Amino acid sequence: MHISIETDKFVTAVQYVSKAVSSRTTIPILTGIKIVATQEGVTLTGSDSDISIETFIPLGNEEREFMTVFEEGQLVLQERYFTDIVKKMPGETLTIQRDGQMAATIESDTVVFNLNGYDPDDYPKLPELPEEDQLILPQHLLKDMIRQTVFAVSNQETRPVLTGVNFDVEHLKLTATATDSHRLALRSATFDGDEELSFTNIIIPGKSLVELSRILKDDETPVTIVITSTQVLFKMENLLFFSRLLDGKFPLTNNMIPTNGKTTMELSTKKLNQALDRAMLLSREAKNNVIHMKASTGGQVEITSVSAEAGKVQEQLHANHFEGEELRIAFNGKNISDALKVIDSETISIMFTGSMSPFVVRPTDHDQMTHLFSPVRTN
Amino acid sequence: MHISIETDKFVTAVQYVSKAVSSRTTIPILTGIKIVATQEGVTLTGSDSDISIETFIPLGNEEREFMTVFEEGQLVLQERYFTDIVKKMPGETLTIQRDGQMAATIESDTVVFNLNGYDPDDYPKLPELPEEDQLILPQHLLKDMIRQTVFAVSNQETRPVLTGVNFDVEHLKLTATATDSHRLALRSATFDGDEELSFTNIIIPGKSLVELSRILKDDETPVTIVITSTQVLFKMENLLFFSRLLDGKFPLTNNMIPTNGKTTMELSTKKLNQALDRAMLLSREAKNNVIHMKASTGGQVEITSVSAEAGKVQEQLHANHFEGEELRIAFNGKNISDALKVIDSETISIMFTGSMSPFVVRPTDHDQMTHLFSPVRTN
Repeated sequence: MHISIETDKFVTAVQYVSKAVSSRTTIPILTGIKIVATQEGVTLTGSDSDISIETFIPLGNEEREFMTVFEEGQLVLQERYFTDIVKKMPGETLTIQRDGQMAATIESDTVVFNLNGYDPDDYPKLPELPEEDQLILPQHLLKDMIRQTVFAVSNQETRPVLTGVNFDVEHLKLTATATDSHRLALRSATFDGDEELSFTNIIIPGKSLVELSRILKDDETPVTIVITSTQVLFKMENLLFFSRLLDGKFPLTNNMIPTNGKTTMELSTKKLNQALDRAMLLSREAKNNVIHMKASTGGQVEITSVSAEAGKVQEQLHANHFEGEELRIAFNGKNISDALKVIDSETISIMFTGSMSPFVVRPTDHDQMTHLFSPVRTN
Repeated sequence: MHISIETDKFVTAVQYVSKAVSSRTTIPILTGIKIVATQEGVTLTGSDSDISIETFIPLGNEEREFMTVFEEGQLVLQERYFTDIVKKMPGETLTIQRDGQMAATIESDTVVFNLNGYDPDDYPKLPELPEEDQLILPQHLLKDMIRQTVFAVSNQETRPVLTGVNFDVEHLKLTATATDSHRLALRSATFDGDEELSFTNIIIPGKSLVELSRILKDDETPVTIVITSTQVLFKMENLLFFSRLLDGKFPLTNNMIPTNGKTTMELSTKKLNQALDRAMLLSREAKNNVIHMKASTGGQVEITSVSAEAGKVQEQLHANHFEGEELRIAFNGKNISDALKVIDSETISIMFTGSMSPFVVRPTDHDQMTHLFSPVRTN
C-alpha cells in the first residue's frame, strides 16, 4: 500500500473512526485503525467490538482530487499514536507507505514516522447487514431523540437492558425509551416510509448512542437505520456506524405511565430548573438530591431543601395553571433537572397522582415527550 | 449585620476571595469567607493560611450606589455553599442579614437561604505589613514574569525552596528565577522607583503566584509589591493579595549559566516546538520524554525519537545561523517545549557547551530571559 492524501481530509476521517477505538480492549488488534486503499479510494475502520465505524474517502470530488493511490493494499496501525501523528503533520499532504507486513512509513514535508502496527489479515470482518428492514430519518431528529432519552439510562450493570435505549417502530412512528427504574424518558417521532415496518425491543447501548450523536449532524441530511436481531447499522454519507444490540427484554413501559392525575400544574421550564439548581446547592452532599415541593391550590409552589450541615433554602414559584388537590412530595432534584434540560418547551405540565406515586412531566408545546419519576420517601 | 447589594458586584468580589479558600485546610474556619460591613462598604476575606485575599466593595462610585448598609457587623460563611448561592441568585440585588452569631439569611427575589457559618471573632487576623519597602510594576509585566518562570518550579516537596520562584531586586532591576534542578527559567525586568531598593532570596510559592496571576490584569494598571521577611503583599485597586514566603536559601544560579558555547545556533521558536511536539508523540510513554538532536555544520538539525513499542520519528530543521562544532545531544523534550511556549520571540538561540553539559536557550529579540537545561544521559 502506498498513498498520498490531503492531510485535512485524512485527519477528519481518522477522527471519525478513532471514536470507536478503545485502549481498554482485550483484543490487541482492535487498538488499531484499519486502512484499506483501492483504486476507488481509502476506507478506514475502527472498532471496540461493541461499536464499529467505517468511513470512506473517495479519490476526489467534482472540484479536485484528494489523493493518489500508487499501490493498493491494507494496514492496521495503532490508533493511540496514529491519530495524533496525522493531526500534527506539517504539510498539506501526507504519504503512507507499507513497510513489511505490519508497519508503515508516514511522511509529510521533512517529517518521517516509522510506525509499528498489526497484521491486517487478522482484523475482524464487519457484519454484512441485509438492506431490507430500514427506516430513514433526518440526522437532527435522531440526534435530538438520543439527547432527550440517553441521559436516563442506568449506569449499573445489574440490569444490562436498562443501560440501553429501547426503540420501537410501528405505524410510521418511532419511539425511544430509557429508564433506570427511578425515572423514565420517552420520545417519539413520526417518519415517512413503509407503513408495514414494525420492530419492538431494539435496545441500543447508551454508550453507542452517545458516540453516534457526536457524528450526527444538526441538519436535514438523512441517516438510514438498518436493523437486525443482533446489530443496528446507521448509514450516513461515506460513513457506517455499527452497534451491537443488548440482549434481553426491555420492561413494558406503556402501562407505567398514569393517565389521570390528582394534581396538575403548568410551570415555566426555566424557572423550575433554576429553582431546583439552587435547592440542590444544599442537597448535593447527600446521595439523593432530595428536594421537597409543596403545591397549594391557587398555584403557589414552594421548593425547599435542608442540609444539616449547611442550612436550608426555600423558594416560591407560581404555577400558570393549577388543578386538583394540595400536595406535598419529595423527589430527586437531579433527575427532574436532567429532564428539564432536554425539554424544548417554555412551559411544562406536571401531573401528580399522590405523594407516594409516580408523576409525569411533559412539554406543553407538543405530545412527543413524556418523563416519569418516582417520588422519594422521606419521614 | 444587614446589607443590600448589587448581585453582580458582590459575585465578582466573592469569586476573587474564594480563590484563596481551600476545602482541604485543617483549620475549619478557613473554609469560610469573612464578610465585614461598615458605613464605608463591605470587605471580604478568604485565606488558606498560605494565601490570603482581601477585597473591598465601596458603597458606590460617582455614577451610582452599589449597596445599602442597614446595620454594620461581620459574618463568616462557608465558601463551598456561599459562592455558588450568590452566583445563582435570581435578582439584581441580594440582601444578607445576620441571624444569631454564626448564621445568615440571604435573600433575592422569592429565594431565601439560611446558611450556617462560623463565629467571625475566631477568624485569624491578616498581617499588617509596613509600607516602606515596596516596588510598583504594571500588572501585565508581573503577570508575564510569573507565566514565564512558574512552570519551571519543582513539584516535589523534597527541596521546598525549589517549589517557589525566587525574586531579587537590585539597581531598579527585578529578577525572577525558578528551577527544578533539571531546568531553570530566568526573567528580568527594569522598573522605576527607589534606586536603593534591594532584596535577595524572596521565594514566593509557585502555587501563590499561579493564583495571583489569575487576578492580575493584562494592562498597565499598577500593582504595588510590599516585601517583609516572611510575607509578601500585592496591592491592587480594592484588592490585597498576601502570600507567605518560603523559608530557606534559594540556590545561587548566576554561576550555573555558561557564558561560552561550543555550538551555537538560531532556530524558529515555532518550528522547533512543533518538531518536539511530534517527537514526543512517541516518547511520552517513557518517563523522560527523551528526544535526540543532531546538529551538523551547515545548520542541518535532526530531531529523532524512538519507542520500542511504537516506532520512530525523524525530522529535519534548518538553523538560521550555526556556529561551532557538530553535536549530538539528548534532552527532555517536554522541558524545552514548556520554555519555548513562554518565549515571546520568533526565533531563539541555543548555546551548547558539549553533549554532557547544560545548554542555554534565549530569545533573540531581547536579553531579559534565559532558560537553562541539563541534557539526558543515554547510551
